[in-house]
Amino acid sequence: MVHHGAMDAGDDDGPDELADLRRQIDAVDERFVALLAERFRITRRVGRIKAERGLPPQDATREAQIDAKVRRLASEHELDEGLVSDVLRAVIDRVVAEHRELH
Amino acid sequence: MVHHGAMDAGDDDGPDELADLRRQIDAVDERFVALLAERFRITRRVGRIKAERGLPPQDATREAQIDAKVRRLASEHELDEGLVSDVLRAVIDRVVAEHRELH
Repeated sequence: MVHHGAMDAGDDDGPDELADLRRQIDAVDERFVALLAERFRITRRVGRIKAERGLPPQDATREAQIDAKVRRLASEHELDEGLVSDVLRAVIDRVVAEHRELH
Repeated sequence: MVHHGAMDAGDDDGPDELADLRRQIDAVDERFVALLAERFRITRRVGRIKAERGLPPQDATREAQIDAKVRRLASEHELDEGLVSDVLRAVIDRVVAEHRELH
């Protein structure tokens, strides 16, 4: 196909491509929030079991295990380990706060 | 089946159930990190397009849109809106930093 000279940059796959990528990001964010909800459904069951048995609401060993694991996964995915660790830390802080409320 | 009186609380579905729930959490965390990686793969393409066209690395309108959307999703999933908003904010701050580096 012949290329007919000076076209607006937007006439290529440009703006559509950007809009398409943003739709993809929105779809990822939907799955992201759904996954967080799934995680809290599970940790709330953990919280109830811990409360029933008088287990402490926080478990430093388990948290260190999770941190090491998500850092390894982040590195495998070429993501910033610190960012992923911080995000999980914020989630786990909320989980621990919920567990304390059950005690 | 007859229940033979006083058993250790741990002999029920207890410790196994806890271990099973933790395996479920680990599986969620794996998907979580993979999803973050998927999001950065897309935003890096957005960053390249923006740099090529001289578009600004940050877009406050788009960010406000994403924040409103994830807050709505959080509320639908009965999650804390503030937590979900903060987590996405940390991710987007990193995305914007990457976009700036491309300019």
